[in-house]
Amino acid sequence: MLALGLLALTVGVHGAKAPLYKNPSASIEARVADLLPRMTVEEKVAQIIQGDMNGWMNFNDPLDNTLTHNETGLPNPGGRKPESTFLNFSPSPGGYATPWEKFVYGVTVGQKYLMENTTLGIPALIQSEGLHGFTNNGTIFPSPISMAASFNPALLQSVASAIASEAEALGVSHLFAPVLDLSRELRWGRVEENFGEDPFLTGEMGAAFVTGMQSGRRRNASQTAVARVAATCKHFAAFGSPQGGLNLAQVSGGERELRSTFLKPFNRACVNALSIMTAYSSYDGIPAVSNKHLLVDILRREWGYKYWATTDAGAVDLLYSLHGTCATRECAAKQALENGLQGEMGGGTFTYFTIPDQIKAGTIDEAALDETVAAMLRTKFALGLFENPYPYEDYASFLRTDKTRATLKAIEEESIVLLKNTNNTLPLKKSGGSVALIGPLADYVSFGDYVFFNSTNNGISPLGGFTQLLDGTGVKINYAEGSKLWSNDQSGFADAVSAAEASDVAVVMVGTWSLDQARLWTPGTNATTGEHVDVSDLALVGAQLALVKAVKATGKPTVVVLVSGKPVSEPWIADHADAVVQQFYPGELGGLAIAEVLFGDVNPSGKLPLSIPRSVGTTPVFYNYLKGSRPLDAGLVMDNGVLKFGHQYVLDSPVPLWSFGQGLSYTTFGYSNLRVPTSVGAKSKTFSVTVNVKNTGNKAGKEVVQVYLTDVQSSVVTPNQFLGGFQKVDLAAGQAKDVTIPISVENLAVWTLQNSFVVEAGVFVVKIGNSAQSFASTNVTVS
Amino acid sequence: MLALGLLALTVGVHGAKAPLYKNPSASIEARVADLLPRMTVEEKVAQIIQGDMNGWMNFNDPLDNTLTHNETGLPNPGGRKPESTFLNFSPSPGGYATPWEKFVYGVTVGQKYLMENTTLGIPALIQSEGLHGFTNNGTIFPSPISMAASFNPALLQSVASAIASEAEALGVSHLFAPVLDLSRELRWGRVEENFGEDPFLTGEMGAAFVTGMQSGRRRNASQTAVARVAATCKHFAAFGSPQGGLNLAQVSGGERELRSTFLKPFNRACVNALSIMTAYSSYDGIPAVSNKHLLVDILRREWGYKYWATTDAGAVDLLYSLHGTCATRECAAKQALENGLQGEMGGGTFTYFTIPDQIKAGTIDEAALDETVAAMLRTKFALGLFENPYPYEDYASFLRTDKTRATLKAIEEESIVLLKNTNNTLPLKKSGGSVALIGPLADYVSFGDYVFFNSTNNGISPLGGFTQLLDGTGVKINYAEGSKLWSNDQSGFADAVSAAEASDVAVVMVGTWSLDQARLWTPGTNATTGEHVDVSDLALVGAQLALVKAVKATGKPTVVVLVSGKPVSEPWIADHADAVVQQFYPGELGGLAIAEVLFGDVNPSGKLPLSIPRSVGTTPVFYNYLKGSRPLDAGLVMDNGVLKFGHQYVLDSPVPLWSFGQGLSYTTFGYSNLRVPTSVGAKSKTFSVTVNVKNTGNKAGKEVVQVYLTDVQSSVVTPNQFLGGFQKVDLAAGQAKDVTIPISVENLAVWTLQNSFVVEAGVFVVKIGNSAQSFASTNVTVS
Repeated sequence: MLALGLLALTVGVHGAKAPLYKNPSASIEARVADLLPRMTVEEKVAQIIQGDMNGWMNFNDPLDNTLTHNETGLPNPGGRKPESTFLNFSPSPGGYATPWEKFVYGVTVGQKYLMENTTLGIPALIQSEGLHGFTNNGTIFPSPISMAASFNPALLQSVASAIASEAEALGVSHLFAPVLDLSRELRWGRVEENFGEDPFLTGEMGAAFVTGMQSGRRRNASQTAVARVAATCKHFAAFGSPQGGLNLAQVSGGERELRSTFLKPFNRACVNALSIMTAYSSYDGIPAVSNKHLLVDILRREWGYKYWATTDAGAVDLLYSLHGTCATRECAAKQALENGLQGEMGGGTFTYFTIPDQIKAGTIDEAALDETVAAMLRTKFALGLFENPYPYEDYASFLRTDKTRATLKAIEEESIVLLKNTNNTLPLKKSGGSVALIGPLADYVSFGDYVFFNSTNNGISPLGGFTQLLDGTGVKINYAEGSKLWSNDQSGFADAVSAAEASDVAVVMVGTWSLDQARLWTPGTNATTGEHVDVSDLALVGAQLALVKAVKATGKPTVVVLVSGKPVSEPWIADHADAVVQQFYPGELGGLAIAEVLFGDVNPSGKLPLSIPRSVGTTPVFYNYLKGSRPLDAGLVMDNGVLKFGHQYVLDSPVPLWSFGQGLSYTTFGYSNLRVPTSVGAKSKTFSVTVNVKNTGNKAGKEVVQVYLTDVQSSVVTPNQFLGGFQKVDLAAGQAKDVTIPISVENLAVWTLQNSFVVEAGVFVVKIGNSAQSFASTNVTVS
Repeated sequence: MLALGLLALTVGVHGAKAPLYKNPSASIEARVADLLPRMTVEEKVAQIIQGDMNGWMNFNDPLDNTLTHNETGLPNPGGRKPESTFLNFSPSPGGYATPWEKFVYGVTVGQKYLMENTTLGIPALIQSEGLHGFTNNGTIFPSPISMAASFNPALLQSVASAIASEAEALGVSHLFAPVLDLSRELRWGRVEENFGEDPFLTGEMGAAFVTGMQSGRRRNASQTAVARVAATCKHFAAFGSPQGGLNLAQVSGGERELRSTFLKPFNRACVNALSIMTAYSSYDGIPAVSNKHLLVDILRREWGYKYWATTDAGAVDLLYSLHGTCATRECAAKQALENGLQGEMGGGTFTYFTIPDQIKAGTIDEAALDETVAAMLRTKFALGLFENPYPYEDYASFLRTDKTRATLKAIEEESIVLLKNTNNTLPLKKSGGSVALIGPLADYVSFGDYVFFNSTNNGISPLGGFTQLLDGTGVKINYAEGSKLWSNDQSGFADAVSAAEASDVAVVMVGTWSLDQARLWTPGTNATTGEHVDVSDLALVGAQLALVKAVKATGKPTVVVLVSGKPVSEPWIADHADAVVQQFYPGELGGLAIAEVLFGDVNPSGKLPLSIPRSVGTTPVFYNYLKGSRPLDAGLVMDNGVLKFGHQYVLDSPVPLWSFGQGLSYTTFGYSNLRVPTSVGAKSKTFSVTVNVKNTGNKAGKEVVQVYLTDVQSSVVTPNQFLGGFQKVDLAAGQAKDVTIPISVENLAVWTLQNSFVVEAGVFVVKIGNSAQSFASTNVTVS
């Protein structure tokens, strides 16, 4: 903090009447350095505690559009001093959207108060969830796990840009997305919020998301502004592998696994993100929220991260109420601040209000407070908020635009994964005949978690999609619900069987379900995925499997569509369905997209961003396990009940039903002429892998060219294979092209016994394929 | 190695004709220092490679008793030079016992050759498995998991002593036991070889086992000898939590978990063990077999471990064939030697034969070889082998003695755990009436793994035990197998139901099964537990649960006996059986012991050494999880199929069916007057917990008084509770006594952020009970 102090002094010498920090032409660092010394301890603390717009308006009634506010609440939102808060509007815990007009009114009033009625005129960050859509009635895109299946970072960048545009116009400057946790513990409820099991794919998708969300500049912002909305990488770090899959539970792991796996996507995607959120969990016995090694040594010092870090809601209190590393709120505040250089989210007791007294008492180092506040101010200057913190008057023109709708449609289509297609059961005929559409998810809209109350009203169900798509085609739809998601009741089976028998083909839609942020936390509701919804079994719940079997027993070709927020483990379906399609939780156009895929208007091009295990007892199944960790001598319980004994496992297999990167098309692709350099210098930045890809079928289609690497020998144990690069290409029938994929040499590094990343000389196998298959392979030598 | 060299020099100055290392009165260190410099590199290497007695005799035919040997094989056992081997007899991979006379002959011939026909006359270690019985037709005791259930270290010490006595007399000097891995990943096949899930219990049982096995001195051994048989603590370290439960798979974990959990039992039990065996697996990316931090920094330097360390069979080759940290045998030998200071077991390609050339070439440091050889010599001197390496002529008087039989009977009885006993269903009436004995394990003998071929012929089945116990009582036994273990065939159910209907009460015996070391590895056999037999499901296999339900449906009181090598997850049985008894794999008298418990001749006193989960998807369930890691909001699939939704888990519970330390008795116990010091110094060695325990029932019984501690606040996250001490007491009906249990203050230490163990000041909760229940509790303050 010494350097900052000196800067401020220099500025003070040259300062004119208007303080330097209000000068849009000054550098961000100079403005931070000027402003920080002007702040009282109370004003500093105010910058790093999350406030609440409900302090001056009621945002808990989604139907109310009263444009008035409580003047006395402005200086005291949520019972706290005005200086002691930056503003926040988040649908949690209420989870309700607010009429845009009212929201804009509320933001304007709040920012105006801060700009004009407070000593320093520091604007607020206005915050919202935005994992797959801005949660105040923004467009809802597919869940992150679904979008990851597109393997299309450019498209995801457009999605994030669309989300940010909707938010930006309404005055929101800070969105809590993306989630870069890895889905390696599939019981965990939040699998759907991630980009899958792989650190590289997650990093690439995360980088695209951050870029898409942040790129651009707010109207009238300073030329030094670098982003229009702050993205938030979360949850830092290793949050996605809680013990037992139980939300918030501790994570076991060492420094090597932390560096080589959990931190990779953050390092790739987040160094320029304007915000990072820390995790609730502990890692090898250290709570993330007070992990100095992680938050200071690595994030701030090693990576040079200079922007805002914040805890998750209520996380600081957990230090005394859950982790037991503190006995008091004072201790918790001190640990989170000094070890984390981070602010405190709401949702708890606001332990940071103890900071001024602790600084007076000398128990907290003000330098830690200064560094934390400086990071917050840096984020605000970088957003240009000091120039213009207000919603745009023409905000309506930013919302639900045609362009956004087109982006939505594209990502819906590219996210659907075709897993099995015996005898070209798919695509279905789109003229004449009949199709049975069966199942509890056939006329149901589920977006996954982190959406607002009633957001599904904006969505189309698969039945709606079928109806729209088949209008005028003469295809008859025989719909039957069959069963409820949450019940073993089979009384609807007869109708389902009748529907199948009356049709040429049956489509059965089964899977998991989640709820919006209001209902997900409401007692008495039910769900099988989503935050704090952790399962002990990955099979279908209730009567769903029996329903599939009953439909299949009719003898009609049976297409099973798994709609889910995580892998569904049903080997029987994998074995017996004529076709299987995986649609991870879609967005508003998901019901149409699935119809388009099933009837061939869209050629599926999604790939699995995570592997689908045979059963919960065969997990973890992530493809990039360390060498030697997946012995195979599979057993099986056969359909007729005969037991076929093996050893790994005795009556099952550690090999997943479908593995990372797999996904079929209605056309076929061939690979040839794989080219890599014979030798690559360990200090090189990248090397190129080139391969000729040909659409060998008779339909246009998109293929994801995937490059996997294996470090043949290394000083520490490395993965049996790992994704090193990928590219999605669109090929007309018969078309061939060379695809060149750059491989970052840095990604070949191992975390050595000497605790640093080193690219070690030696041979690497280069494979083109997916995690389960090789279409071409060769070697490259790093020297 | 400098100190050793100096010692040798000093000795050389004073040496007489007979070299000092042959002087039984000299200190072990002086003898090592004298001998080592006399050895060629080849002789040194020979000391640290495992040989094979099959070199001069055929031990693969258990029925052959020919007392001749191949003279030319003596200098060249197994195709290796005589100097290049120490002897070994292990039933693996053959797994066959040998007639004792022949075995003694073979050992005698081999040792005589080494003592009299080689330059230095260094005797061999003669090795065998001995996990729960010396595996050359020794007495087979219950599996380790079963013996751990006794919570009786003194009794276990007697068991280990009995095992060692049988081995010692036959000339065996080195037994591969105990296993101190922790059973925290229940899918792993080797759970039965461990002492359960808890580091403290495992450490106490391990210490008792090592003490029992080692205590004493071979006949005519030097007065400096400290043990008669070398115990082997294995597998060092963290082997018991392989990813996915798959044998040999990598283990995720950090330094804190390593120190606080996995290493604890080794540190407690093994510093004075004459041998340690390293693990196959990797930990945070470092293979255990080449983990310098673990094997040199911690084991040798920090703990000062001075005896022999060895790899497991074939483990060195895994460095290039599995882990990928080497590309050659030379590299593997170098890493295992230099990073591990350990010898090489057989079962692989004997990479250590490359050491002489590598020393010549300067690629291996001879100091590492010297330190390793010195450790081996130390172990041999400590066993007194230089004075007498021979079997005893009167060996027969050591084998299967009455005393051993009494010890066996005691441990069988104390290992059985009564889990449920509704309406005092147990004990059964022992006069008149009838009992149905049903199930595939009712007339079956299964000892678990690590026993020799046909060892079960020495055992009594439960049906045998019933028959023997009920002889003359007039109780009629109606036996029915019901089903095979390995089948879903229900054709035997009718007989089982008839047997139940014809009886007053039904006992159904179901569970898991393993095989001896010969059949376990034979293609075409089947098993559900044991080394390399890993399961993906913890429920009963085949028709067993249906059999229990069919018997229960008769309306007869139904007692379920789970005979298994690991937890069986069957909530239906927990809910619906009238009584449930857990018998982990017993030894030769197990069939009698279960009869004695069921009919009340023995009052059960076993406690669970590990928790029994509701399903594989709810694991891990070890009781001492880190704080905050086990949120609870349970759901349930009800018997009638109705789904009751929760969140942790959605349709199940992370709370086990039965938790660590639980176990009922036919009497009851009451606790009162709990006393602890108000304050304890952090530097104290121990403090005492005293409580009055009363047998409040009307039968004599044994109770395990268990003391659990919780560190209320600590600098790192600590377990929600941990076992700090326990004592088994025997109380007559109505009898009360004060029980005082010393708690080691050292065990209160946490592995701090500064990477050392520190006993931190603060309050600890002291609980008397088991992991699931509190009978009394208070606080103690450490200052």
